[in-house]
Amino acid sequence: MKYSFKSNLLLLVILISSCNLEKKTDETIRQDEPIFPKGEKITNNNFAGTAYLHMMGATDTTLHVSYGNVTFEPKARTNWHSHPGGQLLFITEGKGFYQAKGEPARLLKKGDFVEIPRNVIHWHGAAPDSEFAHIAVSLNTDEGGAVWTEPVTDEEYNQSTN
Amino acid sequence: MKYSFKSNLLLLVILISSCNLEKKTDETIRQDEPIFPKGEKITNNNFAGTAYLHMMGATDTTLHVSYGNVTFEPKARTNWHSHPGGQLLFITEGKGFYQAKGEPARLLKKGDFVEIPRNVIHWHGAAPDSEFAHIAVSLNTDEGGAVWTEPVTDEEYNQSTN
Repeated sequence: MKYSFKSNLLLLVILISSCNLEKKTDETIRQDEPIFPKGEKITNNNFAGTAYLHMMGATDTTLHVSYGNVTFEPKARTNWHSHPGGQLLFITEGKGFYQAKGEPARLLKKGDFVEIPRNVIHWHGAAPDSEFAHIAVSLNTDEGGAVWTEPVTDEEYNQSTN
Repeated sequence: MKYSFKSNLLLLVILISSCNLEKKTDETIRQDEPIFPKGEKITNNNFAGTAYLHMMGATDTTLHVSYGNVTFEPKARTNWHSHPGGQLLFITEGKGFYQAKGEPARLLKKGDFVEIPRNVIHWHGAAPDSEFAHIAVSLNTDEGGAVWTEPVTDEEYNQSTN
């Protein structure tokens, strides 16, 4: 049984292509598979841009905690706000920023965390060129929920993230 | 230019093998890259098997919270214990179990979370055949730290995880 050089070349091209295709699919899965569920699109005015919230708990109100997963598309961010009982952020995807009022913004990436003190006015959100996801754990919620103020302007956002 | 069936077969085998090799390397990288730091090996007697703790906070004691990342090698687990202020677990890697005393064990995987009520005696740890990592957030720590009791015996572990 004999094959021509042409048919061999064709076989080679098909195999290499399918090999690369499989690799690309694999990479795509890695980027597109969030660890925690994305949840529902946020429709209130406390966020700018497109963001999603998957509330997890607490079922047990005696724990004085509220927690969920927040996913931001590039440039999406919270308004300026504060938490009377403080909050923790655990970054699980992408790149983003945390900025306390009057301080430089802090670049955050997958694996970082932020401990937000009580009553500190701040914002968090995605980098201009990356999605961003974090678990947010609001603490001591028996002392009150988030206090929302004005939006982070495009000027403020651009200055802090450039 | 002509090639034999034999040399074609050889080419095919080499290409498919290299393709699979690349995929295996990729999978290995995915498994070995934890999101949060592994930290230091736990040397106290409150754990069985090999586990690691990366304490994160809290820096601010007024938040009444304590949190870190715990990584368990296969079969590693905590002793039975409880938290006066409750605890949250966010699973970031692998497969494991949570079991409250007197209840069936709950299988946990990446993306799951557990809300552990106040004073419920329980254990958590890795599945027999998988590493396991979670962020643990101990709540209301002004009401006391974890209360540790006896180890989870091999019999208890095998019954719950099989």
